Amino acid sequence: MRRLRPEQDAFGRVLLEHLDGNDRAATIVERDDGYIEWEPPAAYFSPFRNWFAVERQALRYVRGRVLDVGVGAGRVALELQQRGHAVVAVDVSPLAVRVARRRGVRNAKVLALEDLDGSLGRFDTVVLFMNNFGLFGSERKARRLLRRLHALTTDDGRIVATSSDHTRTTNPAHKAYRRRNKERGRMPGQIRFRLRYRRLSTGWFDYLFVTPREMERLLSGTGWHVNRFISNDDDNLYAAVIDKDAS
Amino acid sequence: MRRLRPEQDAFGRVLLEHLDGNDRAATIVERDDGYIEWEPPAAYFSPFRNWFAVERQALRYVRGRVLDVGVGAGRVALELQQRGHAVVAVDVSPLAVRVARRRGVRNAKVLALEDLDGSLGRFDTVVLFMNNFGLFGSERKARRLLRRLHALTTDDGRIVATSSDHTRTTNPAHKAYRRRNKERGRMPGQIRFRLRYRRLSTGWFDYLFVTPREMERLLSGTGWHVNRFISNDDDNLYAAVIDKDAS
Repeated sequence: MRRLRPEQDAFGRVLLEHLDGNDRAATIVERDDGYIEWEPPAAYFSPFRNWFAVERQALRYVRGRVLDVGVGAGRVALELQQRGHAVVAVDVSPLAVRVARRRGVRNAKVLALEDLDGSLGRFDTVVLFMNNFGLFGSERKARRLLRRLHALTTDDGRIVATSSDHTRTTNPAHKAYRRRNKERGRMPGQIRFRLRYRRLSTGWFDYLFVTPREMERLLSGTGWHVNRFISNDDDNLYAAVIDKDAS
Repeated sequence: MRRLRPEQDAFGRVLLEHLDGNDRAATIVERDDGYIEWEPPAAYFSPFRNWFAVERQALRYVRGRVLDVGVGAGRVALELQQRGHAVVAVDVSPLAVRVARRRGVRNAKVLALEDLDGSLGRFDTVVLFMNNFGLFGSERKARRLLRRLHALTTDDGRIVATSSDHTRTTNPAHKAYRRRNKERGRMPGQIRFRLRYRRLSTGWFDYLFVTPREMERLLSGTGWHVNRFISNDDDNLYAAVIDKDAS
């Protein structure tokens, strides 16, 4: 997904209205097989103590100067700032960036993962929380972007990312979607979504959920490898601490 | 809208899941200009004391044997049963009818307003609550169905219905939709919707919001007229007590 135009910024509009006290604002998440859900924005605002346990644990592995990809309402950037990290936060949503700034994120920019270049300097850690490993989109795009991140990070650079093990779903509609993906030669957890709110809608985009094994396979050959997984049995969400291969 | 097939019964599925304790179940309401919202189902279950004031007041005008069109989760039918009325309740949604029965509605059937005939007997009052004057759909269809209801009701038969004065909206998207309707020769408050939940979706259908003046014009020549309107300044929702013309 690239920088959103105003009529596409459904997600950011919901964050902004939530911040301004509209408790009915929620993102409508539509999948390309017609499956549709609403997602309340509160989780994007939650303080550290309310995060999933794997997220709280994963934060320990963040070090140095940080790039927060997909800042949303800023919960991760704010926590890292408070811990003393220098943080650059980016998001494709201009309104999300506005929300993050209003909430105190000091350095937030409208920028897509695909458009990152050396102009922001080098980072010690890249964080992709709230399933944002998914922003890699597809196998091919993931490999390209992982190589790019390799060049934009320091020698002991690190990625701390979360994803969800989509094989653990019991929902028949989700299982059918995974089967269809495999038949079409896509990764099983490669989900085509659009986000809507009122008349706003993003275009369709691919968001990638991977199992821990799929993540390891994806990283192979990109200069990155998984140092450790953080997971628990209660939840499909897991975190990965991803380090550079020895050179 | 006619009797819904299982894959179309988004509205009824949400009611059923809400009854069974899923507090995330909500209907996604999509308009044909792309405007999309979620609607929590709680209002369909609310006890009399929590209804809108105009609804509570309108209930005083219900008399005799009642046909409840669009029973939903049964709140109106249950209240009327408790007051001693004989009630026949109908809905296009098989799952809504199941929910209404489970909640104690004694006589609930899967039947569309369009499919009503003499087999249910004659009624003293037809109730169309929760904006269900909208089920008349369009000017042409409203006139046809109003004449049919005339034949299916007793000599002093009555319709008690609610609608919303759509001219009172301040939402630019809603105003634009009304303008577009006028340009296309539709009634301004004739809204093309579909209701979705997960992969379930009704077909597109017209739902009609009318001003009090539009309602009076619509009734003219059908054998019905408005006896009284019940409204207040705080809300767009109003009720109409509709009686038969002197013959």
